[in-house]
Amino acid sequence: MVKRTSLDDAECPVARALDAIGDWWTLLIVRDALGGARRFGEFQKSLGVARGILATRLRHLVALGVLEQVAAADGSAYRDYVLTSKGRDLFLIVAGLRQWGEAHCFTPGEAHSTLVEADSGRPVGQLQLHGRDGRVLGPDDTVVAMAGGRAGHL
Amino acid sequence: MVKRTSLDDAECPVARALDAIGDWWTLLIVRDALGGARRFGEFQKSLGVARGILATRLRHLVALGVLEQVAAADGSAYRDYVLTSKGRDLFLIVAGLRQWGEAHCFTPGEAHSTLVEADSGRPVGQLQLHGRDGRVLGPDDTVVAMAGGRAGHL
Repeated sequence: MVKRTSLDDAECPVARALDAIGDWWTLLIVRDALGGARRFGEFQKSLGVARGILATRLRHLVALGVLEQVAAADGSAYRDYVLTSKGRDLFLIVAGLRQWGEAHCFTPGEAHSTLVEADSGRPVGQLQLHGRDGRVLGPDDTVVAMAGGRAGHL
Repeated sequence: MVKRTSLDDAECPVARALDAIGDWWTLLIVRDALGGARRFGEFQKSLGVARGILATRLRHLVALGVLEQVAAADGSAYRDYVLTSKGRDLFLIVAGLRQWGEAHCFTPGEAHSTLVEADSGRPVGQLQLHGRDGRVLGPDDTVVAMAGGRAGHL
């Protein structure tokens, strides 16, 4: 594991985001929470990791402000884990990973889950980045404006 | 480090994507490549890691089909690293990380770089997931349809 403290004060939001959530398991927990998982046991069943490891990860996500603990929905003594608004904002990143995975990580015809509209059951559209005039932007249409005035492509 | 071989054959595209690119440094290299970096030395300067570590990471990304090596643009004996179409498709994930980082990883007024339109210099819009009828979809508007017929929220 390479130390990466320098990302913490980077002026690049990509670097800071990866510093916070750039471990593969973070976004798998968020995926499950977006899918309705709330209980420790639900996450454990989905992720198949040891209790101690999962407890550490959930604590990290609570400390990070991505998850919060609330009284259990069923009135039991358990505490549920629910996404904060900061956590729910990871939806688009998880959706982006899904669409990239669908496009590049399956062989043709291989079965995979699909993201669909809840009401119609129809597959969702592709994630898009739009310009201010509504056009769809790709990597060649954008540059990064640095805080100090320098510039470069994303 | 927890073993995660099981993700490799998951039916969930999010899991497979994270299996491939779910290490923080992967997307930082892709970020730099999207920003125009091509040379070993350019990546090294940006990322500040030891040569051996960077060489291993670049080899991984070439093996994964995210980067490819081509003859240097300047005609020298060097080999440049350029993104494949699979690599360029990570643009939206990097953009999503950027926007999440901007929203949640900086204190108010703290300086950060910004993604802007190359031609106008205006900030890009927010990443959006659309339904087939054009409406913007959030986490509550979508469910995951499993390959086997089960269903759950994303």
